[in-house]
Amino acid sequence: MKTIRTTAAMAAWRRRLHREGVTIGFVPTMGALHDGHRSLIRAARMTCDTVVVSIFVNPTQFGPTEDLSNYPRQLGLDRALCLTEGVDVVFAPERRTMYPPGAQTVVAVPAIARRWEGEARPHHFQGVATIVTKLLCLVQPDITWFGQKDYQQAALVQQLMKDLNFPGRLIVHPTVRDSDGLALSSRNIYLSKIHRQAAPVLFRALEAGSAAIHAGERRGASIQRRMARVVAQEPLAVLEYLAVCDPITLEPVSRLPRRVVLLGALRIGRIRLLDNTLVSFRDKV
Amino acid sequence: MKTIRTTAAMAAWRRRLHREGVTIGFVPTMGALHDGHRSLIRAARMTCDTVVVSIFVNPTQFGPTEDLSNYPRQLGLDRALCLTEGVDVVFAPERRTMYPPGAQTVVAVPAIARRWEGEARPHHFQGVATIVTKLLCLVQPDITWFGQKDYQQAALVQQLMKDLNFPGRLIVHPTVRDSDGLALSSRNIYLSKIHRQAAPVLFRALEAGSAAIHAGERRGASIQRRMARVVAQEPLAVLEYLAVCDPITLEPVSRLPRRVVLLGALRIGRIRLLDNTLVSFRDKV
Repeated sequence: MKTIRTTAAMAAWRRRLHREGVTIGFVPTMGALHDGHRSLIRAARMTCDTVVVSIFVNPTQFGPTEDLSNYPRQLGLDRALCLTEGVDVVFAPERRTMYPPGAQTVVAVPAIARRWEGEARPHHFQGVATIVTKLLCLVQPDITWFGQKDYQQAALVQQLMKDLNFPGRLIVHPTVRDSDGLALSSRNIYLSKIHRQAAPVLFRALEAGSAAIHAGERRGASIQRRMARVVAQEPLAVLEYLAVCDPITLEPVSRLPRRVVLLGALRIGRIRLLDNTLVSFRDKV
Repeated sequence: MKTIRTTAAMAAWRRRLHREGVTIGFVPTMGALHDGHRSLIRAARMTCDTVVVSIFVNPTQFGPTEDLSNYPRQLGLDRALCLTEGVDVVFAPERRTMYPPGAQTVVAVPAIARRWEGEARPHHFQGVATIVTKLLCLVQPDITWFGQKDYQQAALVQQLMKDLNFPGRLIVHPTVRDSDGLALSSRNIYLSKIHRQAAPVLFRALEAGSAAIHAGERRGASIQRRMARVVAQEPLAVLEYLAVCDPITLEPVSRLPRRVVLLGALRIGRIRLLDNTLVSFRDKV
């Protein structure tokens, strides 16, 4: 396994591989790898000739009051996990090779970025769209994997790749959960024991929304209320949003189309938790 | 020579060529090809195995009051010129294949886009940056040619390619001029005979600025005044700006660095004319 630290070396490696005609699978991450990332890497490993994992805590997607400096960093452990999983290249660039002085180009996907996480974190998705564009240009993967846990991010990258005519496909990989339903996240390590016990309430709320749909409920507002009632039972949880949305545009729906995504975010202590679930159904006529 | 009309066919052609290991030269245009474009195409033809010319009047770079609907369109003539010059592919997409419903992603290069043409045409450069990003993703050229005539555009694309880590190089090709100095432009056909006679005043102003520098003038403001005085002698010309700028950032300079670009824009009747000249010098110590 090779660790690459500069954009020039990354581009050179990719050029060589493309000449050899091998396929490249790509898993972009901010490090602090957990079993969710492991699952993405395994999917890439099974599908492509070579696998690149990028590890870069992208400063432009953090707001001024957010946890950039405290975001967990553990490159040694991350490299060990990648080695175990048969990764070919860990691309772990320094900040200055990704954003040299004078860098100014930004990419935005305004309609998808407007709501939900975009409301809570105003410049977050512009940072995401910009770094993803840079990484796709550098790695030029045949297939890229994103986790479903950050659903809005995955939907935004899907739209970006289509709009900018990037070659290659995006695969949104199912969320990996602890046994009590909590979606794995690098930020979960910051939950105290008591907060950790409260955290699965978000998953339970989404499950309640999903169950309501399968029981025949078709009104967005009442599914939303059903989910909110579950969260209200947990005194440690501060609800940010729960929404019933179109899975492509992320606009809220009042009457359900055949496929929806239930999106949720809440705070427990100082930690924000995100989760979502996709629900498809077919009404009998 | 092949004419390609869809993004999918363009991507397929490029994939096949990349597998064969041939190099791709790319000349993006809005059509209405003239000897300036011909010169770019010849440079590409001499340098690369295959040459792609795109012809697309990009709607997103025109303002609401600008000449999108009147912009000259002559695909038959353009294809004939490309055939004569040995172009391999003319990529002439329909608007709906470039901007299908729901398309929303935009690319911006804010610092370079802020001044000069960006002031006169507020959304112009965001449209340029977005379409260029799309074309680079589709064509994936080894070398791309832009004309120096639209200097700010070329500087913006240079910065964009660096910032987004696009592979391949940009070559800024010298402006082609009529015998009286007027820079060739697709919009020149709209000049009446009397306006056409007045038009070279912009080139003469830039020449005066350049001469002042070679004669030892090092103060930006006085070079700027020297150029403005030339334009003032032409009653049909309405000056928009004349500036002495850093050739990378396009910020105006008061004391000259070793290399500057003189930028100018003026209106004659309803036509805007742009021109520029690069000046390098080395002071004896």
